Amino acid sequence: MRRFAAETAKDLVRSRSLQRQNRRRCLLSPLWPLLSSGSQSRFSSSASSPDSPPAMGSSPPVTLDTINPKVLKCEYAVRGEIVSIAQRLQQELKENPGSHPFDEILYCNIGNPQSLGQQPITFFREVLALCDHPSILDKSETQGLFSADAIERAWQILDQIPGRATGAYSHSQGIKGLRDTIAAGIEARDGFPADPNDIFLTDGASPAVHMMMQLLTRSESDGILCPIPQYPLYSASITLHGGTLVPYYLDEEAGWGLEISELQKQLDSAKSKGITVRALVVINPGNPTGQVLAEENQRQIVEFCKKEGLVLLADEVYQENIYVPDKQFHSFKKIARSMGYGDNDISLVSFQSVSKGYHGECGKRGGYMEVTGFSADVREQIYKVASVNLCSNITGQILASLVMNPPKVGDESYESYCEERDGILSSLAKRAKTLENAFNSLEGITCNRAEGAMYLFPRVYLPQKAIKAAEAAKMAPDAFYCRRLLNATGIVVVAGSGFGQVPGTWHFRCTILPQEDKIPAVVSRLTEFHKGFMDEFRD
Amino acid sequence: MRRFAAETAKDLVRSRSLQRQNRRRCLLSPLWPLLSSGSQSRFSSSASSPDSPPAMGSSPPVTLDTINPKVLKCEYAVRGEIVSIAQRLQQELKENPGSHPFDEILYCNIGNPQSLGQQPITFFREVLALCDHPSILDKSETQGLFSADAIERAWQILDQIPGRATGAYSHSQGIKGLRDTIAAGIEARDGFPADPNDIFLTDGASPAVHMMMQLLTRSESDGILCPIPQYPLYSASITLHGGTLVPYYLDEEAGWGLEISELQKQLDSAKSKGITVRALVVINPGNPTGQVLAEENQRQIVEFCKKEGLVLLADEVYQENIYVPDKQFHSFKKIARSMGYGDNDISLVSFQSVSKGYHGECGKRGGYMEVTGFSADVREQIYKVASVNLCSNITGQILASLVMNPPKVGDESYESYCEERDGILSSLAKRAKTLENAFNSLEGITCNRAEGAMYLFPRVYLPQKAIKAAEAAKMAPDAFYCRRLLNATGIVVVAGSGFGQVPGTWHFRCTILPQEDKIPAVVSRLTEFHKGFMDEFRD
Repeated sequence: MRRFAAETAKDLVRSRSLQRQNRRRCLLSPLWPLLSSGSQSRFSSSASSPDSPPAMGSSPPVTLDTINPKVLKCEYAVRGEIVSIAQRLQQELKENPGSHPFDEILYCNIGNPQSLGQQPITFFREVLALCDHPSILDKSETQGLFSADAIERAWQILDQIPGRATGAYSHSQGIKGLRDTIAAGIEARDGFPADPNDIFLTDGASPAVHMMMQLLTRSESDGILCPIPQYPLYSASITLHGGTLVPYYLDEEAGWGLEISELQKQLDSAKSKGITVRALVVINPGNPTGQVLAEENQRQIVEFCKKEGLVLLADEVYQENIYVPDKQFHSFKKIARSMGYGDNDISLVSFQSVSKGYHGECGKRGGYMEVTGFSADVREQIYKVASVNLCSNITGQILASLVMNPPKVGDESYESYCEERDGILSSLAKRAKTLENAFNSLEGITCNRAEGAMYLFPRVYLPQKAIKAAEAAKMAPDAFYCRRLLNATGIVVVAGSGFGQVPGTWHFRCTILPQEDKIPAVVSRLTEFHKGFMDEFRD
Repeated sequence: MRRFAAETAKDLVRSRSLQRQNRRRCLLSPLWPLLSSGSQSRFSSSASSPDSPPAMGSSPPVTLDTINPKVLKCEYAVRGEIVSIAQRLQQELKENPGSHPFDEILYCNIGNPQSLGQQPITFFREVLALCDHPSILDKSETQGLFSADAIERAWQILDQIPGRATGAYSHSQGIKGLRDTIAAGIEARDGFPADPNDIFLTDGASPAVHMMMQLLTRSESDGILCPIPQYPLYSASITLHGGTLVPYYLDEEAGWGLEISELQKQLDSAKSKGITVRALVVINPGNPTGQVLAEENQRQIVEFCKKEGLVLLADEVYQENIYVPDKQFHSFKKIARSMGYGDNDISLVSFQSVSKGYHGECGKRGGYMEVTGFSADVREQIYKVASVNLCSNITGQILASLVMNPPKVGDESYESYCEERDGILSSLAKRAKTLENAFNSLEGITCNRAEGAMYLFPRVYLPQKAIKAAEAAKMAPDAFYCRRLLNATGIVVVAGSGFGQVPGTWHFRCTILPQEDKIPAVVSRLTEFHKGFMDEFRD
């Protein structure tokens, strides 16, 4: 595969400009709802907002016109306008209880379980506390406060850290002993070897995704194949790094299926426009769509990447979140290795995070990527970029090692750990099913099942009258729906336009995270709102 | 100030290419030692290294020729080649004790105090442990293990976190209550108001610097004035974001003085080459140079930025590290406010970190930037970029609040806290003085005093014979010196070429961080090595 080439500088400019036009027409336009959504007005590029006081004396050094246009263009819906409105409503409720038709805001916009009352796994927190303050480790009171295996694990971890210094910068890939533990955890999961030198510990999965986008993107002629709908980190990161998002559509009718023919079609179309497609992003289990890929489908994807020379960027952060008996998580590395493909056959990056799973430790910002099938000199470049930020936070590093090596049979904490873990996962499965059923019982809503991850992505067949009302309000129709939902119920969901969707279809993403005792209220508030909305706008 | 303009696409390409040539000639060439140093061979862009096995079957999707050239170009010396060699030697010592003329590696390459034995501040770690595992807070054993004010502080902090959820993503600027505490700490330090909405908590100072560079850099026609020598995060970040580093030289003869005339000269020179200079980076106390700016000098700098419409990027991470009685730290915000300049007069960003100071909590990756004098719509853009990564780690956020609000008179921990803090700071001052004297006693070495920060940056007048030997070894002369030092003594320092220096001068950066009982050995090993080196190469 060759990057876009041009004979002369003049040609370069002309053909790039043509390219840009083409791309705008052919790639971006089906993405309109993703790339210019009414729900994004908080981040719109319109001049100065009314509440922007400090206009610099004579000439302010920085204005929207003089910042990096990639920053201006970038969008990130799950913390966009709707969340600002929710925060305002929350403040109003605090100051004037009873001022709205609901008594609390329910944040279903983001996969942030502990913000909605999920409790952390005790063993993990015990170990973190002991590593933060190791001088209590050998005091007698500590035995009464902490489980024996947490104390033992803390010692093990401290012994893996040079000088037991949890306050020191580590190796830029993360503490070697913790990477050994993580590699062993991957081996146990997959049944294939993992190399600690392939692991890069990061502050959550997001910086890891940015690093790969930064590495792979030379200019807007470099493209990344991304699912639509997608988690908007990907579109934001591609925009910030100046590349081109090449969309492939998941098939909603087929339970958000991933068709190789669609990948091929979009790849060929991008190539014909002069785009060098560098990588394929697959999110499995899916975000915002919740599907779990079948093993055979994963094999086809691996084959496709190998054939087309694409890096496979596998977002596997929801690997523990599987809710249906007929599906299982298989890492893409396991799939590739089981096909006989090794480091020489396919370049593969797997992203993992401590924020998801049953643990949901979002605030700790831990995660890693496993980077396989890159030459040593390219990996050296990844290491160099990691080293510019020195290292990821040690608490997150420790937590990543715990997630990949939880208590085992025979450990003091094993039973309570299993109870906590299984309680959370089975409750999530129940909540997913209840919400899915509720959505499917509503007029004009269909919802695929959440096989995994933390979200439902129901489709709303909006009446023309609602679409017109949204147009009049200068909003995307689904953003209009979500805004009305928030104002009526206090429930915060994110419009499908923030994730991308087939033009003319409308969705929203709703997490399955409200605690079980709140789910009935969520369902009844949703139902009541939706009926009222349909009564108001039915054609 | 207008950004570089061109009439037609053809002109654009031609004039950019001219610009590039000019810049290469006029800006980059005096930076040769910074931008192409022998010490950087680990990160050189030469083809594949001998130890790079996995060559992809037919066509590897990613090679050094197809990655983002900005990544390839970026350099970060403090974790470069010399550290890899040191790690190898350490391994060899472990496997074959006695295999080298020293028995341990002393990492003086990076400001990482706890890696060299500095102990964390007890109160800080107590609070972190309690916030990590709050369920022990009301148990009786906890009273015996933790100080009363740590327990109280942990409660206070938990009460500032919605749902007491230390495992939840926070507001993308950081937890509001912690920002209130930090703003109050800034007010107490400066005597001028600080607004919690101006605070962005980050995973250490590095991501904050990247965010500002990303915001300000549109193309290589945008320049950032940086001191030379500089901390290479700045050059790396500017390179990664595709901007141009506009160097200004600190005056070594004047104790690494910062002359406004030099700023003006370099600014004018950059402008004449079509560069739009967006910002001025000032590192105070200096890294790698250790000087502390005089108040009057700071006023001149503020005036200069105001006059020229530059954003002032103030790296103030060493604000607690002052070692001489005749200098004091003043934040640039305090200076600007004391001159009567408010939000409407100057755009100012102050960077702070938990990694430095007397606490040295590098591994926790906490820090913040205080962003003042930007319009609300531009700040919204900064918020948006922060939101793409969701939030910084909560442990680091908590620690940043503790650093800006340590125990007070009357608190149970106050005395032990002061003892720990003052013990570390006075010891650092002693170590700085001892090393400075040692360097100055050596033939052909001069060393300015370390007024602050954690480094000495001695100048080495290398004999011609040594320079020739370095050339023969294809290394920068100072990198050659540092390599020899490491091989002879186990002491790791970083060549001046990694930070930039006046062409034809040679330096290295050495931290003052080895523990006090090791300093005599460091001095004698350095002295013995240097004498031997001079005997070998004296002209």
